Amino acid sequence: MLPDLETPVPLVDLARVERNVARVASYARTHGLALRPHVKTHKSPRIASLQVAHGAQGLTCATPREAEVMASASRDLLVAYPPVDPVRAARIAALEADRVTVALDSVEAVEAMARAAGAAGRTVHVYVEMDLGMRRVGVQAVEDAIALARRAADAQWLEFAGLAFYPGHIRQGVAEQDAALATLATQLGEAVEAFAAAGMRPAVVSGGSTPTLWRSHEMGPVTEIRPGTYVYNDRTTAVIGACDWDDCAFTVLATVVSTAVRGQAVIDAGVKSLGREPVRGAADEGFGALLDHPEVTVRSMSEEHGVLDLARTSWTPKVGDRVRVVPNHVCVAVHLFDEVVGVRDGAIEERWRVEARGRAHA
Amino acid sequence: MLPDLETPVPLVDLARVERNVARVASYARTHGLALRPHVKTHKSPRIASLQVAHGAQGLTCATPREAEVMASASRDLLVAYPPVDPVRAARIAALEADRVTVALDSVEAVEAMARAAGAAGRTVHVYVEMDLGMRRVGVQAVEDAIALARRAADAQWLEFAGLAFYPGHIRQGVAEQDAALATLATQLGEAVEAFAAAGMRPAVVSGGSTPTLWRSHEMGPVTEIRPGTYVYNDRTTAVIGACDWDDCAFTVLATVVSTAVRGQAVIDAGVKSLGREPVRGAADEGFGALLDHPEVTVRSMSEEHGVLDLARTSWTPKVGDRVRVVPNHVCVAVHLFDEVVGVRDGAIEERWRVEARGRAHA
Repeated sequence: MLPDLETPVPLVDLARVERNVARVASYARTHGLALRPHVKTHKSPRIASLQVAHGAQGLTCATPREAEVMASASRDLLVAYPPVDPVRAARIAALEADRVTVALDSVEAVEAMARAAGAAGRTVHVYVEMDLGMRRVGVQAVEDAIALARRAADAQWLEFAGLAFYPGHIRQGVAEQDAALATLATQLGEAVEAFAAAGMRPAVVSGGSTPTLWRSHEMGPVTEIRPGTYVYNDRTTAVIGACDWDDCAFTVLATVVSTAVRGQAVIDAGVKSLGREPVRGAADEGFGALLDHPEVTVRSMSEEHGVLDLARTSWTPKVGDRVRVVPNHVCVAVHLFDEVVGVRDGAIEERWRVEARGRAHA
Repeated sequence: MLPDLETPVPLVDLARVERNVARVASYARTHGLALRPHVKTHKSPRIASLQVAHGAQGLTCATPREAEVMASASRDLLVAYPPVDPVRAARIAALEADRVTVALDSVEAVEAMARAAGAAGRTVHVYVEMDLGMRRVGVQAVEDAIALARRAADAQWLEFAGLAFYPGHIRQGVAEQDAALATLATQLGEAVEAFAAAGMRPAVVSGGSTPTLWRSHEMGPVTEIRPGTYVYNDRTTAVIGACDWDDCAFTVLATVVSTAVRGQAVIDAGVKSLGREPVRGAADEGFGALLDHPEVTVRSMSEEHGVLDLARTSWTPKVGDRVRVVPNHVCVAVHLFDEVVGVRDGAIEERWRVEARGRAHA
């Protein structure tokens, strides 16, 4: 398999990416939702441009580096991360985009962003981030969210633009999802009404992650979604049923380097190629699975070694064989590589840099 | 703390690194052991040169990139990884060093390395890797190891140079370590005698990892050690007692970005800065701890968020505060960054690239 490529090396199946991107764009269009994909998954203008070409209205970023790099792909950037660090806030204020929005949840972040925006002499839009059950970041009470929105609206260089939330806590089975989505829709509806009653009806209600992607239209007043993982998908996305196995577009090509220890095979992809991410909600299920032998998982890892569990397969690997590993969490695996190889019909078509990884100024 | 630095950013305490490097060099000298540090931890010629200046006889690498970059720091390189992939073998054969050694455990690796060495017209030395209990790679039986060594010795461009093993399975308490070390010494002694009886006495017996570093002289016929983590140390090294907490030289400087959810604080260092590595042998102990508040651990993470557990501390973080996180496994954290900031007495002294990270040709 692609014998000229040195392993470990990340492969992207271009036909699958194109299908994944088109499918979500079509879903968003069908339901009248603005699509603002999160670039953290691919960190590549190559893929961001494909998303924009399919109708994404803007892009979502986490880091200043991501935003700087993505300014080449879209003029409308959301940095969905509290701009507390003054250096971070200054980089955001300096972005070469037509419209820049930040999501935040504290007075400190409002003040840091207002100072940086003023210093740069540019308007920055603000989403107020609310916690609707994820318990990570986000204002807890609607009245506090309104107060924060007012503070942003009153700041000279800021403009209140909407509400943001992240439904990362909704991941379970269908029945639990039904109940959680109904709760979410109610929470959001009440929040929007309270904001409206305070004279600050949010123009945008921004949510959506890949696990709940296909049910975003059931999230009440949501107007915008920010899925990331769907471009490549991964073992977790497949296990939770948010994609099929053959929608997994990203794999790490690896070589079997040792079969010396009975009952296992060792490949040259370990933590430094796959990350040590769990399949969400499941322990002890390994750190990835083989695309062509999904019954074979990466049972344990060192930095540059992955140990394949051969207990459930009739496949008998030999030293020198090549395998494609679907990582548990693709966003973390992509972040480990500087370059990605795009393949179609088993042949190399192009290569691109994972340009937005790292922290340096772009 | 270093307010001009944008977070998250990796800091290296230069005084601590110098102390760590000197201490291990002194230990190796005292016991007449050759020191061949593994560069996977720092991936930086800056630190490798310091190790060589303190008497390291050569360097150990895992990837071809590491070896290519480290040729500037040492002329004697060991690639402790099976050269099965022909592209990998060719890069190793092309290294600009005076002496190149590979560790391997299969006939396929001997053949791949012999072909590449022949094509490059250079001699490559071979360590035969034996499994002494780690159960990862390594020939299982001494007679098979001898056969493999003979195969290498008979190959035109290869030269049998010694035995290698990795005592990564020896990590437990002192009593268990005593027993495991005695077993290891016996295994090694018998292996060396069997090789000698076959007319192939190994010139080098290469082992050693940071957890067992200080007991390397109890490992029977060991002549060479390859510790990596000791330059920086990490939370695991401290927890298992192989270093003190104030020997931890590498931290990730992070900013508190949210305290919106009661009972926790969120920092801007998550999986993409710290890695999701366990403290070895302990589950549910978080993914790092604060250098200045070791009772505070990183309880959970997203890609760019780390949630601090405040249950056991009287420290009350505020949004904008800065903290230094000691990661559980420093080698994995270093691999996530392109640049490191060297500090001394709280001030920035220098910066260097993590030059050997990634896979590209150097």
